[in-house]
Amino acid sequence: MAVATPLLKDELDIVIPTIRNLDFLEMWRPFFQPYHLIIVQDGDPSKTIKVPEGFDYELYNRNDINRILGPKASCISFKDSACRCFGYMVSKKKYIYTIDDDCFVAKDPSGKDINALEQHIKNLLCPSTPHFFNTLYDPYRDGADFVRGYPFSMREGAPTAVSHGLWLNIPDYDAPTQLVKPHERNTRYVDAVMTIPKGTLFPMCGMNLAFDRDLIGPAMYFGLMGDGQPIGRYDDMWAGWCTKVICDHLGLGIKTGLPYIWHSKASNPFVNLKKEYNGIFWQEEIIPFFQAATLPKECATVQQCYLELSKQVKEKLSTIDPYFTKLGDAMVTWIEAWDELNPTGDNLAKLSIADGPAKK
Amino acid sequence: MAVATPLLKDELDIVIPTIRNLDFLEMWRPFFQPYHLIIVQDGDPSKTIKVPEGFDYELYNRNDINRILGPKASCISFKDSACRCFGYMVSKKKYIYTIDDDCFVAKDPSGKDINALEQHIKNLLCPSTPHFFNTLYDPYRDGADFVRGYPFSMREGAPTAVSHGLWLNIPDYDAPTQLVKPHERNTRYVDAVMTIPKGTLFPMCGMNLAFDRDLIGPAMYFGLMGDGQPIGRYDDMWAGWCTKVICDHLGLGIKTGLPYIWHSKASNPFVNLKKEYNGIFWQEEIIPFFQAATLPKECATVQQCYLELSKQVKEKLSTIDPYFTKLGDAMVTWIEAWDELNPTGDNLAKLSIADGPAKK
Repeated sequence: MAVATPLLKDELDIVIPTIRNLDFLEMWRPFFQPYHLIIVQDGDPSKTIKVPEGFDYELYNRNDINRILGPKASCISFKDSACRCFGYMVSKKKYIYTIDDDCFVAKDPSGKDINALEQHIKNLLCPSTPHFFNTLYDPYRDGADFVRGYPFSMREGAPTAVSHGLWLNIPDYDAPTQLVKPHERNTRYVDAVMTIPKGTLFPMCGMNLAFDRDLIGPAMYFGLMGDGQPIGRYDDMWAGWCTKVICDHLGLGIKTGLPYIWHSKASNPFVNLKKEYNGIFWQEEIIPFFQAATLPKECATVQQCYLELSKQVKEKLSTIDPYFTKLGDAMVTWIEAWDELNPTGDNLAKLSIADGPAKK
Repeated sequence: MAVATPLLKDELDIVIPTIRNLDFLEMWRPFFQPYHLIIVQDGDPSKTIKVPEGFDYELYNRNDINRILGPKASCISFKDSACRCFGYMVSKKKYIYTIDDDCFVAKDPSGKDINALEQHIKNLLCPSTPHFFNTLYDPYRDGADFVRGYPFSMREGAPTAVSHGLWLNIPDYDAPTQLVKPHERNTRYVDAVMTIPKGTLFPMCGMNLAFDRDLIGPAMYFGLMGDGQPIGRYDDMWAGWCTKVICDHLGLGIKTGLPYIWHSKASNPFVNLKKEYNGIFWQEEIIPFFQAATLPKECATVQQCYLELSKQVKEKLSTIDPYFTKLGDAMVTWIEAWDELNPTGDNLAKLSIADGPAKK
């Protein structure tokens, strides 16, 4: 029954945000070399970033982003890995895999190198089960199925929009937890993939993440972080909250679990605390906001959903801090820029909202 | 940091429904012998069931159930393992563990015997996280924690009412899946415990299940199954749907995952199909009913919640089949019998509903 996983060589881009030479790619060579890389260089654009020989890539620094997007470049963060979402926008492929440059190849319990990308592709190509919980985890995996009591009408599942991979070694902890548990390492290999149920939010980490750009791309905006902003390290969280609400509305699934990567080095908890402290307060209000958020039936495309969310963000979160007015505006700019760079199909959404009903 | 798990010897009963000699207990001796067993003998009460030497137990057959409950015995199923819930009712302990008599001790990947009960106790004694998803699974396990982006206000979690364990070897499949995949075995040991999120239903299996009787006992009614009923093998499912809705309403958590037991033998799929076929149709309407069910704020005890659910069952499911009117009535009888056998505290609920506000 086991079917080989397709490579999707011409349908997947790997997006890497970085400020340094990409030596980490050496370890990934057997797995990544078949793919096209989109490197988003953060920080000083005059710096040269070395990419190991033999990789097929395009590299964008801040000057490129400003040139390509013009005034709309304001929606792309600077000095924060949130800048990676520019790569999602310029890609022309159906699938995106994004990974941090301090993430290495992990080993499974048998000692074998884990081909993270292959597992992400598996996750994305088979359905999710957001409407009912399967106690044996992903029912589409080899050796698994739906358990007794799982309604047959729901066994087709939902298209999978996002595959959220995990991390061995350094877990993705916030600064306070890093400070309290500086020595904690994640050594537990959990051999599971599961769907996050409809109506449940989750903390989406951008370290090891794949998604279907056609299904959910425009929702993968990593927000305004870093330089000039009162917050950092909430870029992927923001994208995760928005994405989950929109996936739930559109009947799409999000999987989490395998594959693991090896996260090599904890970032500095003191620096992180500075970036995070506003988020730590704000998330106490942001999360209930997203838990309660509903989208009207008329929102039928990701763009329509996202623009509707941007309105709700401005209306309901601006009371926390004026930052959210700016963020709401940036969400609109992001969609405008997305549609400019991706001028087909999805664009209808933007046009019908911006210009009223299309004239015949 | 690792703390020894308490035995809870005087606070936990093991409930076993059976029709045969309990030889399977030999394998469980090192783990079960410290506990008191409640054996619910199904089928012919004149048959003698042998229990291995050295176990402390009480045994109830159908005559005992009829004698103890009188006319209310009608709510306890006959010729179906649903009869096990009688054991929950006569127990006087805080915790219940129930296991099928074809379940043996499983081994973990290192080859060590799994003490299933110890893991259930661990699960029940530490909180659940039903309000937000933690991507590293149970944040309270050794070596794990809440990941970045998990709201701090939710890190206390919720009391855990139910611990749902899984099965290696023979998975808990329905008859159609058994027929299609007669040779499938579950060999995947997933080293995880997780909370089923609020608002999400799951198929609860009674094969390897523990719960806190004080928190959720009266919701653990296994329905009318088997002899004289148009359905079987939906006893645990029914209890699971009701329990989940009530746990969500009362702010309690349900965990699933570890521990595994070794399920030795698949039941006959042809016999199962006969028992299940109505359920296979009916669950297509029952599950949306439970997904939409809400309980009024005034329902503050499990009994109040359960009686309210019984009303909704009769109102909304009786259109499927007259069976649900009978089941709704049996749910009320179950609560009456529960309160009769457990005449403190919780009883207030029943009294206040049956007799109006208590007079001073």
